[in-house]
Amino acid sequence: MRPRTVVNVAMSADGKLSTRERRQVKISGKEDFLRVDRLKAECDAVMVGIGTVLADDPSLTVKDAGLKELRHSSGMDEHPVRVVIDSTARTPPDASVLTKGSGKRVVAVSCRAKQEQIAQLRTRATVIVAGEKEVDLATVMDELGTMGISRVMVEGGGTLIAALFAAGLVDEVYTFVGNIIIGGKDAPTLADGVGCVKESEFTRLALIDAICIDDGILLHWDVVR
Amino acid sequence: MRPRTVVNVAMSADGKLSTRERRQVKISGKEDFLRVDRLKAECDAVMVGIGTVLADDPSLTVKDAGLKELRHSSGMDEHPVRVVIDSTARTPPDASVLTKGSGKRVVAVSCRAKQEQIAQLRTRATVIVAGEKEVDLATVMDELGTMGISRVMVEGGGTLIAALFAAGLVDEVYTFVGNIIIGGKDAPTLADGVGCVKESEFTRLALIDAICIDDGILLHWDVVR
Repeated sequence: MRPRTVVNVAMSADGKLSTRERRQVKISGKEDFLRVDRLKAECDAVMVGIGTVLADDPSLTVKDAGLKELRHSSGMDEHPVRVVIDSTARTPPDASVLTKGSGKRVVAVSCRAKQEQIAQLRTRATVIVAGEKEVDLATVMDELGTMGISRVMVEGGGTLIAALFAAGLVDEVYTFVGNIIIGGKDAPTLADGVGCVKESEFTRLALIDAICIDDGILLHWDVVR
Repeated sequence: MRPRTVVNVAMSADGKLSTRERRQVKISGKEDFLRVDRLKAECDAVMVGIGTVLADDPSLTVKDAGLKELRHSSGMDEHPVRVVIDSTARTPPDASVLTKGSGKRVVAVSCRAKQEQIAQLRTRATVIVAGEKEVDLATVMDELGTMGISRVMVEGGGTLIAALFAAGLVDEVYTFVGNIIIGGKDAPTLADGVGCVKESEFTRLALIDAICIDDGILLHWDVVR
């Protein structure tokens, strides 16, 4: 059974995840940072796309010592399994997601990825090969389920998230909407990619909750099927 | 004195104003529609960019009969002054904004606009010529102030709104965030244009209010200076 998938992003009031140069900027604050750390600690895996790895080099680790200890004392690794969706196996061997903190890594690639690069990634991660040109996300989710992962948090970027929505693989969405306008027609958003044209293609949501935190608002949506 | 400027848009949960084809889609519902109609009736002018005129052909009129009557009985025109920002004077002579409903129209063009087209627009609207290549928005706002307009509602699109933010000409922002994911890296957003790169360039907001209406949430922001 595929894992429950929770998308979590911070966006500006005009819906941008970062500047057009894909430089990470402060959108939320301490309270939201703690919430995201807790959500991460409650998940079995954290997933990002290769664009986010190359732009931000995130470690995707749990930061709070108490949360790490709690996971540890429950018999889990300190950090959730870190998953990179990377069609052509471009994840740098020294990427923080592969090198920082203990725990398992998964890199999902497509058949376009070179054997040599797959072999190199295999020294640090479990490599799933799925899909012809792009990673077949449904297959990856099934594989993650088989590995015992029941809840995945997706941290971005907009291309991966759009593909997950298009494949009907998202169950829940948290968007922290921050008190800034970044602007830019080329700045990344929650769901980039090709996008929908027809109403019937839209993903429908239900607003579960809205809470003012830091200087913005956290919107919690359920995906309606 | 320049008018107070209120931006009002409906966006999907992923921050899109429409599909990548710029086709208008239903994002909000009846309750938000009435709120927007009321806001429009309370303003002295409604402004859009030429992109919105060409894509949607909006009339920008007040719809509710009671609101029109209220304006009328207060000695105002039934509809606020309709303002189009149109650097090269491309507004079609038969555009709804020029032809539907009574009341004044203003088309702001730049020095790039051809005299012939300006002359044609002058048969239906007051034409303001301001700015070399693009319309100088600060000058237009000052002119609108001189015309006795003290509150302007801006309905889009993302290019005009981004330019207004960049010029420091926005005072207040309403974003209705709807319960759909549209997606698309080329779909229009609240603030398109070039966008900011440095934190110091961001427009800073303060969240005044958040109200659940229809199946989404209405966020009301003040611009902080």
